[in-house]
Amino acid sequence: MRSTYPTFGRVLVTGASGFLGGELVRRLVADGAQVSIVVRAGSRLDHLADLLPRVDVCFHDGSTQQLIALMRKVAPDVVCHLASCFIAEHQSDQVDNLIDSNLRFPTQLLEAMTMAGCLRLVNTGTSWQHFETPAYRPVNLYAATKQAFEDMLSYYADARNLSSITLKLYDTYGPGDQRRKLLRLLMDAPNVRKALDMSPGEQRVDLVHSTDVVEAFVVACRRLLGEQAVLRESYLVSGEALTLRELVLLLSQVGVKVKVNWGARPYRVREVMHPISAEGLGLPGWSASISLIDGLRELAERHGGKAA
Amino acid sequence: MRSTYPTFGRVLVTGASGFLGGELVRRLVADGAQVSIVVRAGSRLDHLADLLPRVDVCFHDGSTQQLIALMRKVAPDVVCHLASCFIAEHQSDQVDNLIDSNLRFPTQLLEAMTMAGCLRLVNTGTSWQHFETPAYRPVNLYAATKQAFEDMLSYYADARNLSSITLKLYDTYGPGDQRRKLLRLLMDAPNVRKALDMSPGEQRVDLVHSTDVVEAFVVACRRLLGEQAVLRESYLVSGEALTLRELVLLLSQVGVKVKVNWGARPYRVREVMHPISAEGLGLPGWSASISLIDGLRELAERHGGKAA
Repeated sequence: MRSTYPTFGRVLVTGASGFLGGELVRRLVADGAQVSIVVRAGSRLDHLADLLPRVDVCFHDGSTQQLIALMRKVAPDVVCHLASCFIAEHQSDQVDNLIDSNLRFPTQLLEAMTMAGCLRLVNTGTSWQHFETPAYRPVNLYAATKQAFEDMLSYYADARNLSSITLKLYDTYGPGDQRRKLLRLLMDAPNVRKALDMSPGEQRVDLVHSTDVVEAFVVACRRLLGEQAVLRESYLVSGEALTLRELVLLLSQVGVKVKVNWGARPYRVREVMHPISAEGLGLPGWSASISLIDGLRELAERHGGKAA
Repeated sequence: MRSTYPTFGRVLVTGASGFLGGELVRRLVADGAQVSIVVRAGSRLDHLADLLPRVDVCFHDGSTQQLIALMRKVAPDVVCHLASCFIAEHQSDQVDNLIDSNLRFPTQLLEAMTMAGCLRLVNTGTSWQHFETPAYRPVNLYAATKQAFEDMLSYYADARNLSSITLKLYDTYGPGDQRRKLLRLLMDAPNVRKALDMSPGEQRVDLVHSTDVVEAFVVACRRLLGEQAVLRESYLVSGEALTLRELVLLLSQVGVKVKVNWGARPYRVREVMHPISAEGLGLPGWSASISLIDGLRELAERHGGKAA
């Protein structure tokens, strides 16, 4: 199932300080690619400490000009853009963060790439750009910034021949994931020994293991490298969908017994009850290979080991 | 042809320091509306000097929070957003300006409006969002930011019931226009007494008089105010289209004789040869009322008077 590397020497990754970005760097290094990462001064890279001797760490000062210089120096064959500011329900004072992280920086990245002649990008979108419809309808402002960025991409594709694949992710999980997300909350619940107050739990979630997500980025890189024409593609990276109640049931099967007060909380405003179907919209040559039950078992074992 | 004001008391205008924004403020004040303008510290308002006693000038410090407070104080019935950073062919160091002016500030504006319960917006787009096709295809990065902003608008429309009409403008002109645009260059040419080096001149331009553009904003305001449902509309504001060569011919008919070296320069990269047709996509209840020949005659007279 693992893809082998063809000819690409150097991959530049943004968002390496995050969980998925870090996992991608780990995979690329393990496979022998030359990896550069672009981070801001002060970004935490503890999770990559063991890899740092083999990774080229580039600091971005926030300007377009410096990013151009950096891109010219690195000259990556392909850029994987995973840096993002994720906010499910934003507060007014977070508008600037969302614009800066999800529009300013990535537009600077497109400008730098095209000025430096680096014309292949794997971009990260979200299934939340499609609130219960295949058309564009953003769940939240975060998803709107992701869609808005694709409009910026269109310009660089058309005017400067930038080739891109956007991978729209659903929910992701994996061992080592420190993000304060639902699954982590559920895994930690048994230690708390108190019933969790939750929504009625009929909303479906679509979960993909980080190893599979990373594989999708690698497949997308290869696809860009194997194609001479300018690509402007977008795919959904979907795993297994089930309701929250079903997820809690599945967890109990791997030994994680969570007591939940279903309905003690209301659904979130604009709760996604049915993530859109990825049928016919998946990345060619990729499918999730880790079943949810196996993924959860792995989590439970690691978690148990950690607690011991 | 002039629309009369129905019930709206207060209109908030952004971009009043620009030509069209200033003209809109002048019209609204003349018609008896209460007008507030949002400007940055240091914005030039000389062209509105005679009106300032009757206009509420609000300074924005750049933050979302202060814009919310300001919006709550003003509580406009409708907001006309004309502030924009226009760059035909951007340089790398202008990316930040484009993002700040055309995405950050207007998104802050949407956040402030919806937090303050002001739910009617007339937004300004550009025909350049449609490079020789009715679909989205940006002529330049400026047009891409305009499209990207509409994606942000979608969120506020859907999640917070913001009602909006986007007016996509073509080329605009009028007396008092100090912008360094083509028509101004042509008007000034006879004084220079040297032939102008230009492209072959077969590209078509679509010109709308500022008085007509201002009327379109007023019609859009009334449309928003007369409708209870949430609108999410977009219209093209088109005038008369003709080639550059024909425009120079028309100018000679009103006494402005311009000597041009046609073809001495190449066309611009991504020159718009045929602006898209507005047929069937015009704002209901509006059409251009000032013919190009009349508009040019007015310009020539004013220009002559000024030169004398």
